[in-house]
Amino acid sequence: MQSPGIRDFGIRRYSSEDRDDSDLDQLVVEEPLEIILCFRRKSMLVRKPISITMRTPGQDQELAIGFLYTEGILHRRSDILAIERGTDSSISVTVAGDLDLSRLERHFYTSSSCGVCGKTSLQALRMNREIHLDRSRPKHSVEFLLQTPALARERQSIFEHTGGLHGAALFDSQQNLVRICEDIGRHNAVDKLVGAELLAGRSDFSDLLLFVSGRAGFELVQKSIMTGIPFMVAVGAPSSLSVELAREYGSTLVGFLRERRFNLYAGRDRVT
Amino acid sequence: MQSPGIRDFGIRRYSSEDRDDSDLDQLVVEEPLEIILCFRRKSMLVRKPISITMRTPGQDQELAIGFLYTEGILHRRSDILAIERGTDSSISVTVAGDLDLSRLERHFYTSSSCGVCGKTSLQALRMNREIHLDRSRPKHSVEFLLQTPALARERQSIFEHTGGLHGAALFDSQQNLVRICEDIGRHNAVDKLVGAELLAGRSDFSDLLLFVSGRAGFELVQKSIMTGIPFMVAVGAPSSLSVELAREYGSTLVGFLRERRFNLYAGRDRVT
Repeated sequence: MQSPGIRDFGIRRYSSEDRDDSDLDQLVVEEPLEIILCFRRKSMLVRKPISITMRTPGQDQELAIGFLYTEGILHRRSDILAIERGTDSSISVTVAGDLDLSRLERHFYTSSSCGVCGKTSLQALRMNREIHLDRSRPKHSVEFLLQTPALARERQSIFEHTGGLHGAALFDSQQNLVRICEDIGRHNAVDKLVGAELLAGRSDFSDLLLFVSGRAGFELVQKSIMTGIPFMVAVGAPSSLSVELAREYGSTLVGFLRERRFNLYAGRDRVT
Repeated sequence: MQSPGIRDFGIRRYSSEDRDDSDLDQLVVEEPLEIILCFRRKSMLVRKPISITMRTPGQDQELAIGFLYTEGILHRRSDILAIERGTDSSISVTVAGDLDLSRLERHFYTSSSCGVCGKTSLQALRMNREIHLDRSRPKHSVEFLLQTPALARERQSIFEHTGGLHGAALFDSQQNLVRICEDIGRHNAVDKLVGAELLAGRSDFSDLLLFVSGRAGFELVQKSIMTGIPFMVAVGAPSSLSVELAREYGSTLVGFLRERRFNLYAGRDRVT
């Protein structure tokens, strides 16, 4: 059975030899998922659409939970009362306690054309959760870090060859690959990863390393720090804001990670 | 003088030979820009923050205008009354006429974790502008299409070597490169391109080809069609939704464009 994350399309292949072949091509599926937050206010159940994200189907519950957690809306797994799939490509997450609706509205009033969701002021780009990263752990050797792309690639799913997927993986302090997730959106891959770990019972991410197959954009570094993951390595380039954020919070940031070399942008103490 | 789009960072380079060199690295700058829409309502001037986008500084006015146009908020250049830069990384665009505020609020109430901005319903992911693409033009040869990545690369700016930039270029029907823009966000590169052309006086995009250096995600195909550009070629992979959208609107979509080959996903009539 084919994965829900890939779909066949009839296409034509052209080449410089002027062949024009009809063929089938497997493409990554990209479809919208609406995330709806439900909570009680004065005995009324409030339903609030929070986000529509373009994602690759599969692990939708993990994606929704990870998104709410990395965006600082959900703070612990025990606050989740229910997760329901709608008939209309939506996931509703019911959380315990009242939420400050006015704060949520401020938070989500405007929207972003990139990974940074709905912050109404530039200050709001900063974290809304107290973060304390332990600068002494986890420690990893240069040798191990150079291996992480190959280790992640071994575990990427068959549909990686569509060429349209970002991978994100977690490694523990003993160098074990804990979990890997893929999605057409790099932020979704990280959200699925974090959501899957939360749903599996993890509450402490402080000993983990996050690997991403693409660039280390600001929103990924922000999600990593919001989750309490102190070590992030990326195959691609970081941005200026990524480096500034990692330095401000004392997290370790590696970029341009290839088979034989990498650049360290922040958090040197964790590299041995 | 260094471009505002790049910044030096002190880093350490590691390699498998265990060297550990201090060095300077040039990174792409990623910083937030707030886009504020201003319009008159019953003689009052309404100021409405529309989006905060993480972008590479430079061509901010073009980015704001292109964003408002490709998102279907601004429909023609003559509706722009003023463009002002704020002191706080914001651009205010004053437009003629009243805007239906309630519709704008619905449009932008929720936000997205990806390039699709603030659509409150899945239907809203579709266009809000009447689009009619002429299926007979522009026509391009296989030979020319295979050359577009090299032609675009020749014109990319010096800071392309930071490895963190997406490029977007327009070619006319005579195969001339009209303009190229770069940004850390691929949607921003396209918005800058469209905005720059609008500000330069262009109102008709129907004879142009859009080249993008990365993947052809849904939001880029949507922006291309919203702008009336009937031909889009991408070095990277399209997604399922990109192909479905291109086929629905009769636009031409090419992906995996390399030196010697490409895949055609939609709009075969324009390839000769």
